[in-house]
Amino acid sequence: MNSIKRIAVLTGGGDAPGLNGVIRAIVKTAISRHQLEVYGFLDGFYGLITNKYIKLEKSNVSGILQRGGTILGTSNRDNPFRFPVKKNGETIYCDVSDDAIKNLENLNIDVLVIIGGDGSLNIAHELSQKGVKVIGVPKTIDNDLSATDVTFGFDTAVTTATEALDKLHTTAESHHRVMVLEVMGRYGGWIALYSGLAGGADVILIPEIAFDYTKIKEKIEARMAEGKLFSIIVVAEGAVEKEGQMVVAKMIEESTDPVRLGGIGQVVTERLAKLVGLETRVTVLGHLQRGGSPTATDRILSSRFGVMAANIAAKGPWGHMVALNGKDIINVPIVEGIKELKTVNPNGELVEAAKSVGISFGI
Amino acid sequence: MNSIKRIAVLTGGGDAPGLNGVIRAIVKTAISRHQLEVYGFLDGFYGLITNKYIKLEKSNVSGILQRGGTILGTSNRDNPFRFPVKKNGETIYCDVSDDAIKNLENLNIDVLVIIGGDGSLNIAHELSQKGVKVIGVPKTIDNDLSATDVTFGFDTAVTTATEALDKLHTTAESHHRVMVLEVMGRYGGWIALYSGLAGGADVILIPEIAFDYTKIKEKIEARMAEGKLFSIIVVAEGAVEKEGQMVVAKMIEESTDPVRLGGIGQVVTERLAKLVGLETRVTVLGHLQRGGSPTATDRILSSRFGVMAANIAAKGPWGHMVALNGKDIINVPIVEGIKELKTVNPNGELVEAAKSVGISFGI
Amino acid sequence: MNSIKRIAVLTGGGDAPGLNGVIRAIVKTAISRHQLEVYGFLDGFYGLITNKYIKLEKSNVSGILQRGGTILGTSNRDNPFRFPVKKNGETIYCDVSDDAIKNLENLNIDVLVIIGGDGSLNIAHELSQKGVKVIGVPKTIDNDLSATDVTFGFDTAVTTATEALDKLHTTAESHHRVMVLEVMGRYGGWIALYSGLAGGADVILIPEIAFDYTKIKEKIEARMAEGKLFSIIVVAEGAVEKEGQMVVAKMIEESTDPVRLGGIGQVVTERLAKLVGLETRVTVLGHLQRGGSPTATDRILSSRFGVMAANIAAKGPWGHMVALNGKDIINVPIVEGIKELKTVNPNGELVEAAKSVGISFGI
Amino acid sequence: MNSIKRIAVLTGGGDAPGLNGVIRAIVKTAISRHQLEVYGFLDGFYGLITNKYIKLEKSNVSGILQRGGTILGTSNRDNPFRFPVKKNGETIYCDVSDDAIKNLENLNIDVLVIIGGDGSLNIAHELSQKGVKVIGVPKTIDNDLSATDVTFGFDTAVTTATEALDKLHTTAESHHRVMVLEVMGRYGGWIALYSGLAGGADVILIPEIAFDYTKIKEKIEARMAEGKLFSIIVVAEGAVEKEGQMVVAKMIEESTDPVRLGGIGQVVTERLAKLVGLETRVTVLGHLQRGGSPTATDRILSSRFGVMAANIAAKGPWGHMVALNGKDIINVPIVEGIKELKTVNPNGELVEAAKSVGISFGI
Repeated sequence: MNSIKRIAVLTGGGDAPGLNGVIRAIVKTAISRHQLEVYGFLDGFYGLITNKYIKLEKSNVSGILQRGGTILGTSNRDNPFRFPVKKNGETIYCDVSDDAIKNLENLNIDVLVIIGGDGSLNIAHELSQKGVKVIGVPKTIDNDLSATDVTFGFDTAVTTATEALDKLHTTAESHHRVMVLEVMGRYGGWIALYSGLAGGADVILIPEIAFDYTKIKEKIEARMAEGKLFSIIVVAEGAVEKEGQMVVAKMIEESTDPVRLGGIGQVVTERLAKLVGLETRVTVLGHLQRGGSPTATDRILSSRFGVMAANIAAKGPWGHMVALNGKDIINVPIVEGIKELKTVNPNGELVEAAKSVGISFGI
Repeated sequence: MNSIKRIAVLTGGGDAPGLNGVIRAIVKTAISRHQLEVYGFLDGFYGLITNKYIKLEKSNVSGILQRGGTILGTSNRDNPFRFPVKKNGETIYCDVSDDAIKNLENLNIDVLVIIGGDGSLNIAHELSQKGVKVIGVPKTIDNDLSATDVTFGFDTAVTTATEALDKLHTTAESHHRVMVLEVMGRYGGWIALYSGLAGGADVILIPEIAFDYTKIKEKIEARMAEGKLFSIIVVAEGAVEKEGQMVVAKMIEESTDPVRLGGIGQVVTERLAKLVGLETRVTVLGHLQRGGSPTATDRILSSRFGVMAANIAAKGPWGHMVALNGKDIINVPIVEGIKELKTVNPNGELVEAAKSVGISFGI
Repeated sequence: MNSIKRIAVLTGGGDAPGLNGVIRAIVKTAISRHQLEVYGFLDGFYGLITNKYIKLEKSNVSGILQRGGTILGTSNRDNPFRFPVKKNGETIYCDVSDDAIKNLENLNIDVLVIIGGDGSLNIAHELSQKGVKVIGVPKTIDNDLSATDVTFGFDTAVTTATEALDKLHTTAESHHRVMVLEVMGRYGGWIALYSGLAGGADVILIPEIAFDYTKIKEKIEARMAEGKLFSIIVVAEGAVEKEGQMVVAKMIEESTDPVRLGGIGQVVTERLAKLVGLETRVTVLGHLQRGGSPTATDRILSSRFGVMAANIAAKGPWGHMVALNGKDIINVPIVEGIKELKTVNPNGELVEAAKSVGISFGI
Repeated sequence: MNSIKRIAVLTGGGDAPGLNGVIRAIVKTAISRHQLEVYGFLDGFYGLITNKYIKLEKSNVSGILQRGGTILGTSNRDNPFRFPVKKNGETIYCDVSDDAIKNLENLNIDVLVIIGGDGSLNIAHELSQKGVKVIGVPKTIDNDLSATDVTFGFDTAVTTATEALDKLHTTAESHHRVMVLEVMGRYGGWIALYSGLAGGADVILIPEIAFDYTKIKEKIEARMAEGKLFSIIVVAEGAVEKEGQMVVAKMIEESTDPVRLGGIGQVVTERLAKLVGLETRVTVLGHLQRGGSPTATDRILSSRFGVMAANIAAKGPWGHMVALNGKDIINVPIVEGIKELKTVNPNGELVEAAKSVGISFGI
């Protein structure tokens, strides 16, 4: 028996193009198709914990499909099960999930839709286990969530990285340089692989395939022998040297430095500057990958996700998240989506295709 | 036993962003992976019939991934089984396929790779039945080929149409106008549906769902009642009025007028100008949908198609075409790819999602 | 003595990218620098006549710089000196300017800022002569206003037309076609000349240089002789054949057909289809030229115009309009800006430069 | 009496969008209008010194207008008056200008056209003083050459920086962050000022206006008081703190680190992270500003420059460079163009306009 009358939405974790498309589709579908009321918690879980929210009408989501960002705001570090509280000058972490749940009850929220990545979906699962009806919508520009073929935001990030490679290409060629572009991808090399394929890169370095400087050098020299006095290298931020044992990746992950610029990209560039007789330059794409108007593909995917999320928010199954499977939008238990990361298959068709068009993975 | 030593490539039919990506991947893969020689026939089947060709080396395909068009040229109307010949002032159609096959034999071409749409793949099939080893690569910006989930060029066309909708949006809003955009799609409403979803259209008219002017009027008036004094309508060129019985679509198809502008888009706009109390304007996107640098998605898909085409050209199965199936590149008998068109399911998830975000299909 | 306390703004005539930039700069400057109150009349002069307005605070203009259109709305045909009124089933034109002025007085508007083209600035001048303190901001994507070097919106329109030419280029080349692009410019060939130069056109047809079909044919054939089997032609909508005596342009101007598509572009394409032995195709860019996010150049120019408009609204000289002169923003009497159109000099450096890079003007 | 029969072209210094447009216009104009032969030295002055060149025909420059980079190649550090030579393991700098001039004589080059920035134009001047007929074409994306109103490449760089700001905007807003973008501009703040104006920045830091952290903090806090919990800061790489005495700029200039990332941008971000209670992030745009397809504006300007350069190469005055002056292309003695840098006027209309729309310069 369907007694759902009021739902709430929040967006957690890092920004991703398409968040507004999801919110818009949820609000429109929930109101028009299911006669639900919709609320939005502000700034991710922080708003849930501190009870900051707005009511969402169709007028609130008018004209937001093509805009980057999220009208609800987001925050990276506000886990209700591990919320930072200052006590006697020190930061301690408290479980404030009961307060969060009380906020939902006081506002008569029947279902909470959580749009977020790995971290947010874990919180969704924990809330679910405490009895909250939750719906998950997977979000990561890194595309490394296992339950869905693709996540929204990924296509926009790949497009931005590809445009950057197009720009670097002509300069590399004019100057006979090795140009290194560091892109996102801490655990999965998806952005690097896709943008490298699309941008005509010569070398792609990803976390899934530990690389060897000697092989990169060989590739660059093979190109020079063909009269191509420049090379383009895409490096995922989580790429690792064969001997490196994830050292750099770990260093980055643990870093709290707000202005850190370029980890592995910088390291690779420095090293190649010494190994090959060409000028080398590095560019770190950084936050540009998270912003901007979503591509057509991401607007469509985020809309479809939002529609399905509203549909299952209204009728169940709760505790599920939406996902893309081939051409279909499906729903799967949230616990499925978070159990492992989706990484690039080093022997799969994509990597083989890349090798066939001449791309080296540094091995 | 693999005795393939030399292959040839041609691009047939209308232009599509990604053709160069396919050619590039075929040449690189065929030469580096399979030690084949590669030739390219110029201007589609016309070059095959008249024996116009070039040898393709890796240097010929350097730097072409990001360029629209085809370095081999193409032509729309040169079917070797029905080749137009002038005789006594009249045009008669002759079967010159034996000449075409002789050209292949004289040049010692072992396999012919045909990149083209419905028409070109039919020719591929006929050549195959006469004993030629052919490989097909499906190409249509309309995305209406049944054997493959998506065709390259489609994403670029959708992106161009979406950008057009973004531009029309602000003007429509500022002027309180009904803006109509006519896009490609004679038999399938894919471009209209995708770009309409991505561009936030209010009405989408496609061949698969015969429309009713009264319903469009109701949608526009419902928006006005909400204070939205403008509407955006996307019309596939093959859209039909409920009572219209494909009349317009037929008219367009049979037209030989080189400067025809806007069929159904113009008709819809004229009619709505009389039905609703708002200014109406039409834009026909036309050839802009076929051009431009391919999107990242189309560059990747065309590269993957090209790699697979070279692989099966080298080792078989011949008589097959490449295709995208879910996340995989597969190959299927060409005859599979051409037996029926892939059209939008009027009751499918995509149309339902569009309706959920408020889009009317004029019914 | 400066007694200006409250100003109002309206946007009249056709949409142009940058209108929101002007409004934003006026509101911010008027409030922060001059402590003025700002009102906005809605939908151009229609709002002035019918007393529809909103108060504009800084929050109203937040985030609008990058958006096309105008947050105030606009309308094309609501001249207070010639306002259409239905009487006994007929439309008669009445002078309702006294009502408009009374609305200004009742609202205590000290200065009215009118952002508009030729027509709107003429109304501004007439209001000025009836004692209203007015400030003009020139606006036309056609760039044909004589008092200013450039108008905002022009760079965006040229960019859109150039992108269209880039797209047509590859298709023209692949298919060996003559591609014709019709762009705006009823009296001045600015968009055609600039986009033709930037897009690498082979022929540019503009109102200022009456063309001859024979010469276009010669140019296309000269290219074919060089092995270039395609040509790109840009036609301003006001282009005229040498013998044509503005016939087509007049026809277009007088047309009330809401769905008219392509005047001269279509005519030229039809004619060339008969004259040269190549396929010919036409694309009419139409409303796409008025929309979209303004380019950086237009965002800057519109901001500078708005700042100056607010400054002279606050302190005079009233009856003036802002303008770009070399690198400087200046102000000139409105009457200066409207006395003649700025047209392309057929013997000037720009046309000579175009000829030097091989462009034909059909003469 | 005009005895010029053969000219040569080279591109020196850093890459800039539009170089190919200049080369194309020179070649087309020189051949078609002046019946000259044209050669191109490869890789800037390095090709002149080592006698590496190609003959340039019209076919060489076909289709290059829209491409970034330079088909002739370039290099940053090959001054013929100070050419690095290895001797006994050490690098010494030799004057090899006589060898360069001999190369010109042996190839019968009558005029040498040098497309380059400050450094290249200085070399041009020195060659001129040794009797070589030279023509200069000013090139710098920084726009800091005094003899010309604008340089090509600048508009493209500003467009790239503005697009980056658009992307950062939505993420900044969603996350309540301070986003810092470091752009080029060692001595002139042009790119920062233009892109900051166009991208709706809140703070712009340029070399011409030494900034004060306290004032930036005040601006950010004033925004927070208005409910705007994010800020966008654009920093020119040569920006200086009031107390800083160019320390950072000097450090950068003297740096030979090939992988240096972010000087002042990083410093500012680190400092603000401590000063204000918001997350701060930095992005360094770097080489992306030099690449990509030139904007319509840059394609037109580079074409006009190239036409004029060919005209004065053919007929003189030699020793001059081309320049934009208001709406006109003129030529001025090279010595004029290099005598001082063009910097932003801290009290000029542009800076005042920026302040009027609410932008702080950190003072």
